[in-house]
Amino acid sequence: MTDGSYRYQELADFITRLVSGGALLPGSRVPSLREISRERGTSLATALQAYRLLEDRGVLEARPQSGYYVARAGRAGFAAPAASRPPRAARSVAISGVVLQLLEHASDPGLVPLGCAIPSADLLAAGRLDRVLAHAARHRGIEYNTYTAPKGDPGLRRQLALRAARWGRALSPEELTLTCGCTEALTLALQAVTRPGDTVAIESPTYFGLLHTIEILNLKALELPTDPFLGVDLDALEQTLREKTVNACLFASSFNNPLGCTAPDERKIAILRLLTKHRVPLIEDDIYGDIYFGERRPTPFCALDPRADVIYCSSFSKTVAPGYRIGWLMPGRHMQGVLERKMALTLSGAALTQAAFGDYLASGGYDRHLRRIKGIFRDNIERMRHTIERTFPEGTRVSRPSGGFVLWVELPKQIDAQVLFDRALERGICFAPGGAFSATRQYAHCMRLSCGAPWSARIEGAVRALGSLAREAIGSRSR
Amino acid sequence: MTDGSYRYQELADFITRLVSGGALLPGSRVPSLREISRERGTSLATALQAYRLLEDRGVLEARPQSGYYVARAGRAGFAAPAASRPPRAARSVAISGVVLQLLEHASDPGLVPLGCAIPSADLLAAGRLDRVLAHAARHRGIEYNTYTAPKGDPGLRRQLALRAARWGRALSPEELTLTCGCTEALTLALQAVTRPGDTVAIESPTYFGLLHTIEILNLKALELPTDPFLGVDLDALEQTLREKTVNACLFASSFNNPLGCTAPDERKIAILRLLTKHRVPLIEDDIYGDIYFGERRPTPFCALDPRADVIYCSSFSKTVAPGYRIGWLMPGRHMQGVLERKMALTLSGAALTQAAFGDYLASGGYDRHLRRIKGIFRDNIERMRHTIERTFPEGTRVSRPSGGFVLWVELPKQIDAQVLFDRALERGICFAPGGAFSATRQYAHCMRLSCGAPWSARIEGAVRALGSLAREAIGSRSR
Repeated sequence: MTDGSYRYQELADFITRLVSGGALLPGSRVPSLREISRERGTSLATALQAYRLLEDRGVLEARPQSGYYVARAGRAGFAAPAASRPPRAARSVAISGVVLQLLEHASDPGLVPLGCAIPSADLLAAGRLDRVLAHAARHRGIEYNTYTAPKGDPGLRRQLALRAARWGRALSPEELTLTCGCTEALTLALQAVTRPGDTVAIESPTYFGLLHTIEILNLKALELPTDPFLGVDLDALEQTLREKTVNACLFASSFNNPLGCTAPDERKIAILRLLTKHRVPLIEDDIYGDIYFGERRPTPFCALDPRADVIYCSSFSKTVAPGYRIGWLMPGRHMQGVLERKMALTLSGAALTQAAFGDYLASGGYDRHLRRIKGIFRDNIERMRHTIERTFPEGTRVSRPSGGFVLWVELPKQIDAQVLFDRALERGICFAPGGAFSATRQYAHCMRLSCGAPWSARIEGAVRALGSLAREAIGSRSR
Repeated sequence: MTDGSYRYQELADFITRLVSGGALLPGSRVPSLREISRERGTSLATALQAYRLLEDRGVLEARPQSGYYVARAGRAGFAAPAASRPPRAARSVAISGVVLQLLEHASDPGLVPLGCAIPSADLLAAGRLDRVLAHAARHRGIEYNTYTAPKGDPGLRRQLALRAARWGRALSPEELTLTCGCTEALTLALQAVTRPGDTVAIESPTYFGLLHTIEILNLKALELPTDPFLGVDLDALEQTLREKTVNACLFASSFNNPLGCTAPDERKIAILRLLTKHRVPLIEDDIYGDIYFGERRPTPFCALDPRADVIYCSSFSKTVAPGYRIGWLMPGRHMQGVLERKMALTLSGAALTQAAFGDYLASGGYDRHLRRIKGIFRDNIERMRHTIERTFPEGTRVSRPSGGFVLWVELPKQIDAQVLFDRALERGICFAPGGAFSATRQYAHCMRLSCGAPWSARIEGAVRALGSLAREAIGSRSR
């Protein structure tokens, strides 16, 4: 990365490695701004930016008149959540009311937006995409004022096939279908492989929108024990497939919402083997896949075994344009069924918007854009976790996602997050209460916090206020 | 209408009234171009344009060196189709394959486009809308790069409420929900008032897309006898409601596709009374309502009795922008159910596109645009009917729609329109075979022809070629 605006992040990572590797011990003085900028060949301003970031993240402490020190491990960071243990039975879902209420609060600009996993528009800064659309509307409008071919604009499908090739799946554009966001992709996938009354096995906790779709399609949800780092428990999955009727599985490809877990490749391959053995199709939701903080993008299930029965779903709603409604799916052997359902549900996507989005991807700006927002999301997550660790009650657990932009917070068991939610609303703060993430209301003491808005005093204040409310709820003193 | 570009149509209508009223008799000479232009105060060019239009419509004949004469009634025009008599039983539908095949041919630019009811983009000439979108993308992109409120962009909903007020329904924008075209509106409406296995009563013949949606939602279709001018037969509806379980009715508000029928207000009121009595909700499809040729827009059901249980659905796909995917519905007492389903199926529409469309409506160009395309559609229909009457075999019947842009053609019973379809494809011509318009395959000898492309020698040649194929099919000599 040679772009100067990211040097401070590189420098911050460098210092973090020295601390975590033990080269710099807690309480020890770190090189002064002047020293480090000379050693690392950066400007003083860049060094200052890096140190301030590390201070926000809780890695360094500034001491007046004295300089920067490695923060003392006065208290360890909060542990990650434990693996979930939902009841092992298929249940019908009744969550519509909760979801509608949440979405209404989420679109209220007066609330601090920790509620929905929506990146804020000023953070996405999709002006380049808007300009491409404006150009297409002015010059090619007449060409695109018609229904698209059933699968959607061929140019955009070609670009998507090229992107899929990067994570190892060689595709023809004919194997893809464009949709109205990932929501329509998942709905079509579920409809293509299930019938009303069927059972879908899912991670637990899982995104409430999926539970809602399962409810509307009259399906049953079977929640599986899920590790906050590794995803679905393999033994539990095997036992479930052996003992129960499961008509489809629906798992995140990476950075599950809300836990942030990603199954490593070997575990994904083992899952696919199990599903093939039991002839159960997998629907994978890769909507967060491009927002990885590590060196390498996690590989989707569909690229690990091209013969497995997988329907891949994704969209650009979390990375650049929630307002454009560009989603897509790769239905494998279910293409005919998916297309038939798409014709009946929405018929066609917006032709001009799809074509413009294809132009935008072809122009190459998307990868630069991704690097920028991944840095911001990661930074937001670190700062929010640090704020939580300083202000929430002992016994709180926080997820450690390596991608995406949400945190899952387990509060002490006696706290009712729904009560907290109502109190937070009174203070102008929105978050997503944990009960919405389970068909069996497992997570009444949990909350999901979105890190999709630029970090600010307003956001930090809101997280601190949630910490105070949580402490009040258990009669814990202020820290 | 003072716009000069329509004077020739006014003049043509004036002459047509003289002919149909008997002031000008068949075979008689009509005023010369010079005479009529002086009498009516038009230019010679306008008079010539009017006479040529009437010649194309079969009202006048030009005789070389002699002038224009009223066409002799050498043969009467074809009769309208008879009222339909489908079997009175609910059937499950299996039409997906036919629909997908038809849509694939319909998006093939190499075929003469008589197959799908899609206005051609150059006829719609939606450049003004495209420019409004381009402006919005350049200047307000960041404002709209997010999920819309559940019901969709408030500005566009306000404009739609103002338009509904013109046909007599006073609405709040909060009573409307935006959708991805009329298809999503109808799907949401059906899902909100039915469950899988339920029965929906429909007109017969009816748009194959509706039958397809009924199939995908696992509903049954009950086809009702339908008059080509007046719509659903009232006695048959009453008897059906008395004797069968009907969970919903789905009727066109006006210009039913493919017949073109529109129930008069009194019949609509009687239908609503029957449905209220039997507590059956009505879903009305008003997608063609703005394309009326008469003095007055037909009134939708929902405006005739605000207390009736009606879900109104429409879109702008037939009038200005099939590629924009702007549909809407007014779900009445079913708003909550509709919103819950919308969240699960597509979550949100394209925010910027919706906002731009609202700006376009507010700017007032839409009504001028409507007047222009209505004139063109009407003219296309007259010319196509005239060509059919000159080239199709005796015994053919043709609909006489007073709006929309499709013709329904009943061929002599022994003709199999599916066989004709295959032969037409070989000649590069697409039309919609009648079998696709019935759950019980009533209309094997019928065809729907779209008049949605500008009239041209290519279109006229294709209609003539269909006439030849039809005559060949029954061994009739060329006329």
